[in-house]
Amino acid sequence: MAKNREFPLAQVYRLLEPGPVLLVTTARSGRANVMPMSWYTMMEFVPPLVGCVISNQNHTFEMLRASGECVINVPTVELAKKVVACGNVSGRSVDKFKKFNLTPVAGAVVKAPLIAECYANLECKLVDRKLVTKYNFFILEVVKAWIDPRQKRPRTMHHRGEGVFLVPDRMIKLPSPKTSLLPK
Amino acid sequence: MAKNREFPLAQVYRLLEPGPVLLVTTARSGRANVMPMSWYTMMEFVPPLVGCVISNQNHTFEMLRASGECVINVPTVELAKKVVACGNVSGRSVDKFKKFNLTPVAGAVVKAPLIAECYANLECKLVDRKLVTKYNFFILEVVKAWIDPRQKRPRTMHHRGEGVFLVPDRMIKLPSPKTSLLPK
Repeated sequence: MAKNREFPLAQVYRLLEPGPVLLVTTARSGRANVMPMSWYTMMEFVPPLVGCVISNQNHTFEMLRASGECVINVPTVELAKKVVACGNVSGRSVDKFKKFNLTPVAGAVVKAPLIAECYANLECKLVDRKLVTKYNFFILEVVKAWIDPRQKRPRTMHHRGEGVFLVPDRMIKLPSPKTSLLPK
Repeated sequence: MAKNREFPLAQVYRLLEPGPVLLVTTARSGRANVMPMSWYTMMEFVPPLVGCVISNQNHTFEMLRASGECVINVPTVELAKKVVACGNVSGRSVDKFKKFNLTPVAGAVVKAPLIAECYANLECKLVDRKLVTKYNFFILEVVKAWIDPRQKRPRTMHHRGEGVFLVPDRMIKLPSPKTSLLPK
């Protein structure tokens, strides 16, 4: 490995995390919260399962654990400043919907609000808590999904850490006999 | 939600998965294999933990379960055709390193080979099998990480399903008092 340089273990997340940043909304006792999240993975196609890590230091952790529900919202780069702002204050002390002028919309299934400004909104139920205590890892089932059809080329934000985001501006298509590269 | 259109549950993965496609290598009884993977998440900063879904239909599932080790390789868009090709044949019948002209390099800790052509290589140990049976979900600890310092602006590939990939060509930086948006 002469050509390569060892890379710090503590920075490994910067290589792997650039899926799109999400905004997770939760509700409890008539109050709603919103938090950016980058640590998640699809776990099953149908029903769609999403696994995600939410720190027990975050207000959303308790909101999600108590309510058993949330909404995953997919923001585009136009919302970049609001996304970063949402990650820098706590919902314990601030109503982020009001402070950052985000529009809550009632969902069809869960009590947590959808964010109107986001490209997509996924209503989720918490279906497996086995790894919550050890890893802060929640398994969610997407029970209803919404998309904004007016956004033909949504440019998502992919967090690389420390306020740096990649923005996919290019698309390539390669013939792939398998429908998906992913495990089925 | 008048402005939005309901989105098919079975397509939800196309919204969430665009983290960079990875190539996972495994080794067992002197044979190595390589598989593209998009379903994974960071789970902890230090030591870096990565959770990933690998279908029990894939050769890599048995290789990883038996050996308890793998390497996560991060390819760039220059390897796009090989990445897709690796996802369309099984390592049970084909030596993909030979067939696709990928160069195996010995790791420092694990027996699975690193792929020389990739931008980054993460040597991993399987540390938690609790969700393997139910969700095909493996928790890996990155024990050694390598990066190619010559690649200053690596353009990763972000799979959107059906052979379509997003390529991040643009970077934006926003001031963020917190080091990371992510849970710590």
